[in-house]
Amino acid sequence: MFARGLTPPYYAVIFTSTRTDGDGGYDATSERMGELAEKQPGFLGVESARGADGLGITVSYWKTLKDIKAWKEVAEHRIAQGRGKQAWYKHYETRIALVERAYAKL
Amino acid sequence: MFARGLTPPYYAVIFTSTRTDGDGGYDATSERMGELAEKQPGFLGVESARGADGLGITVSYWKTLKDIKAWKEVAEHRIAQGRGKQAWYKHYETRIALVERAYAKL
Repeated sequence: MFARGLTPPYYAVIFTSTRTDGDGGYDATSERMGELAEKQPGFLGVESARGADGLGITVSYWKTLKDIKAWKEVAEHRIAQGRGKQAWYKHYETRIALVERAYAKL
Repeated sequence: MFARGLTPPYYAVIFTSTRTDGDGGYDATSERMGELAEKQPGFLGVESARGADGLGITVSYWKTLKDIKAWKEVAEHRIAQGRGKQAWYKHYETRIALVERAYAKL
């Protein structure tokens, strides 16, 4: 999935992670969360990659901080966050960042 | 490579790309740019992943906007940027973002 050519300012949620072994329902939940996020107010797009070394980076883009907070509090998403913390991720870090400028070869 | 537990505020450069076919010197230059970036003033860390669908995401972290501008202007880096634009990338987008908050399972 791509999120190209958005006009700043807007917000980015940079989520970096390393997974534990096995699936344990991760793939299905990940897909479901993508579907849910797309329906949220203020959602602008998402880009995701996981490399051979196991590091995953997902960046989702949002109109406002309020939209990000609302998505964080969605009940089904909160359950997924809990399972992520307990079972799916060895490490993760979530960064909330204001995109001030952007340039591209689109 | 990981960049964990930095204390906001600081800057993130989110670089997303899709590659053209073949290497054409890309891997060697990519490695060299990583080495050079680490020596730059204000460099805090970098995280990179490229997925099976070809989308690559590299996020580098910097103390200030001035440090990012200085790195962009480094002569050897400018040459690499030119080759990237002309030869290595089908598409790319660079976003400069101020990290306002972060939370983690480290």
